[in-house]
Amino acid sequence: VEDGDAERARDLVSPLHPADIADLLELSPADRRGAVAAALGDLVGAEVLSELNDYVRDDLIGDLAPEQVAGFAAELDTDDAVAMIEDMDDADQQAVLDALDPEDRAAIESALSYPEESAGRLMQRDLVAVPEHMTVGQVIDYLRDHGDLTADFWEIYVVDAMHRPVGYCQLSWILTCPRSVAMADLMKREQTLIPVDMDQEEVALRFQKYALISAAVVDASGRLVGMVTVDDVVHIIAEEAGEDILRLSGAGEGDINEPILMTVRARLIWLVVNLGTAMLAASVVGLFEGTIERFAMLAALMGIVSGMGGNAGTQTLAVVVRALATNQLTSSNTVRMIGREFRIAATNGATLGTLTAVGSYMLYGRLDLSLVFGAALLINNMVAGLAGVLVPITLERNNIDPAVSSSVFVTTMTDTMGFFAFLGLATLFLR
Amino acid sequence: VEDGDAERARDLVSPLHPADIADLLELSPADRRGAVAAALGDLVGAEVLSELNDYVRDDLIGDLAPEQVAGFAAELDTDDAVAMIEDMDDADQQAVLDALDPEDRAAIESALSYPEESAGRLMQRDLVAVPEHMTVGQVIDYLRDHGDLTADFWEIYVVDAMHRPVGYCQLSWILTCPRSVAMADLMKREQTLIPVDMDQEEVALRFQKYALISAAVVDASGRLVGMVTVDDVVHIIAEEAGEDILRLSGAGEGDINEPILMTVRARLIWLVVNLGTAMLAASVVGLFEGTIERFAMLAALMGIVSGMGGNAGTQTLAVVVRALATNQLTSSNTVRMIGREFRIAATNGATLGTLTAVGSYMLYGRLDLSLVFGAALLINNMVAGLAGVLVPITLERNNIDPAVSSSVFVTTMTDTMGFFAFLGLATLFLR
Repeated sequence: VEDGDAERARDLVSPLHPADIADLLELSPADRRGAVAAALGDLVGAEVLSELNDYVRDDLIGDLAPEQVAGFAAELDTDDAVAMIEDMDDADQQAVLDALDPEDRAAIESALSYPEESAGRLMQRDLVAVPEHMTVGQVIDYLRDHGDLTADFWEIYVVDAMHRPVGYCQLSWILTCPRSVAMADLMKREQTLIPVDMDQEEVALRFQKYALISAAVVDASGRLVGMVTVDDVVHIIAEEAGEDILRLSGAGEGDINEPILMTVRARLIWLVVNLGTAMLAASVVGLFEGTIERFAMLAALMGIVSGMGGNAGTQTLAVVVRALATNQLTSSNTVRMIGREFRIAATNGATLGTLTAVGSYMLYGRLDLSLVFGAALLINNMVAGLAGVLVPITLERNNIDPAVSSSVFVTTMTDTMGFFAFLGLATLFLR
Repeated sequence: VEDGDAERARDLVSPLHPADIADLLELSPADRRGAVAAALGDLVGAEVLSELNDYVRDDLIGDLAPEQVAGFAAELDTDDAVAMIEDMDDADQQAVLDALDPEDRAAIESALSYPEESAGRLMQRDLVAVPEHMTVGQVIDYLRDHGDLTADFWEIYVVDAMHRPVGYCQLSWILTCPRSVAMADLMKREQTLIPVDMDQEEVALRFQKYALISAAVVDASGRLVGMVTVDDVVHIIAEEAGEDILRLSGAGEGDINEPILMTVRARLIWLVVNLGTAMLAASVVGLFEGTIERFAMLAALMGIVSGMGGNAGTQTLAVVVRALATNQLTSSNTVRMIGREFRIAATNGATLGTLTAVGSYMLYGRLDLSLVFGAALLINNMVAGLAGVLVPITLERNNIDPAVSSSVFVTTMTDTMGFFAFLGLATLFLR
């Protein structure tokens, strides 16, 4: 599309939603993205930039003057503006901030003062807060007089004299009520308040659990400082839920727009750690070299024992990591969960053990080998089930992300135990 | 808490949000859940039931009379009522439907007529639609007169004479405008319409991409038949993103409230499939029994080659499966993605190959063995990288869920190729 005819490209793209234009830019090859963006001109506005993948955006705005970036930032909600400039290096960021007008600068600087991935970064400052004594009619008149208050809001917060939220009111309640009703009578007092330093993952879980559309953010003294809206949380919910699969498999961030060297590095670290644990497991095999020299078929079968343990461990791990991430697994049902996984491991281990024992008997016709094989599979399946549930729970209790580190421990155990159980039993019982 | 003193339990629980009461029930042991629910009495209302995990809810309402279930269903939005009764067997479902009043029954029956996991099941029928010629003032008066229209709504749809949506209007726009403005001038004409038979995963992606709060659902003739709101979609976004990790590791649904036998069955099927492919890979080892008898240390090292390939393959797989699920990987960037993964695999393979060659030389002091070991690792890493990206893409193109079946294919390839490359090279070059 982009072969010189910039005019035609603009005509084609102009009816698209900013999110679609962002997609289009992401799908363009990295080395032609700048040219595509230039051809599209002012169709690539602040909204498109805020929809872009972080790496792609940083790439595109890297060439812009601070004044241009500031121009985009001024058009956006505080949270989107912060997301746009938070990854810049300090000097560039300062240059952009200097180019902003004082009000926008103050808002963004204050957001940047909160930790990354906290509610303070996520929230927007523009919101509607009214005192309790107002009536519906007064609120509507106030909104009509201040029509430029903020872009999108779905709920109004009711605050006391200290600007502390005492309740909230959905816009639909206001619209379906006579003008004379007092806000104090219309509002709901039970509300989910978000502390400004709460981690965004926890914010996302609250939104999910209580089906929130927006929520008031309060500072340490309980004063209303901003609001988080569901459209900003939806991205986090999807990311956090999708992250576990990437972490569990050691794929780092897994962002396909990440510079390739960062990806290589993230994955390599994981692979080297796994290489170390694989060496450890292999050293167990070394203990039984004599047995393997006598029965070479053991070499073929031992990989099945350790591999099946790894598969069963990964199943349990995936379930437990998800249950921990979604707060479904808490201290009150930990014991039940362990019991459940133990029973599943025993059942599956017994079934697989029987299957492999019968299968290998038919294949090799050796009863002793078949029994050793089946028993080793049963043992390793139980080890896998227990490790799969105990390792992530232990890590979580010690505040280590179970998704990142569990699988190294679990596969080390299933590898080592698989080799040890199978070759050990073979050394004892095979003649 | 639940030792006879039901009165006190009710006092403790009554200030809680329905979602918290639902959590409490889920965390209770399965065999005491009925007693807990009975003790809480009418605190366990329709809202609590709709927040419950499917299995836990089915368990609790299994004992109720159809009239009681119908009573709960009548209190809920159509989508929540449908979720409550869609898993019942036909006779029970019919009994509940018969106990409903005709209007609710018609709404639920019509929802049930759409396929499971489609927009038709997800949507609610209660919504506000107004004709284009109305003014803001008329809309407000209409809403005040029909205050009981629906529980929660965030946007109003503007329809033509055929009841086809022509635009939408956020409530905040209505509240910040003078009464005299015409809806036709206030509404936005660009809107995301959801076909009634669209899969819920696709609906969730639309909500995410366009940051929607609610969206109009239309039938085949383009008429407005319902609306989907973001609070119903948030659950789906989280589930769909979290599902991939469970599917990729063969853990089935991974629901910790699922009856244990269903879990055993789902995981066992996966393990048996993997047992089959592990046998296949092991049969490759059988081809080289002679070589292993001569060099027993090969048995220890071959597992490292195949295992490291498996790890690298899983990394690539996780990234590709996520990219496919989030529509980041499309036909336009497939070739680039393959190239990217190939370069990552080559870099990591070369690094790991060098590492292991040097390491094994220090350990065994045999140059030929070290070179064979390093070369096999490099080869298997490349196989893993290519399989990790080609398998899921191929499955997706053939409309097979790549998360479910990719890893079987990939690990079969890395296992087989790992054994074959390492033992084959050893047979050729080791003296």
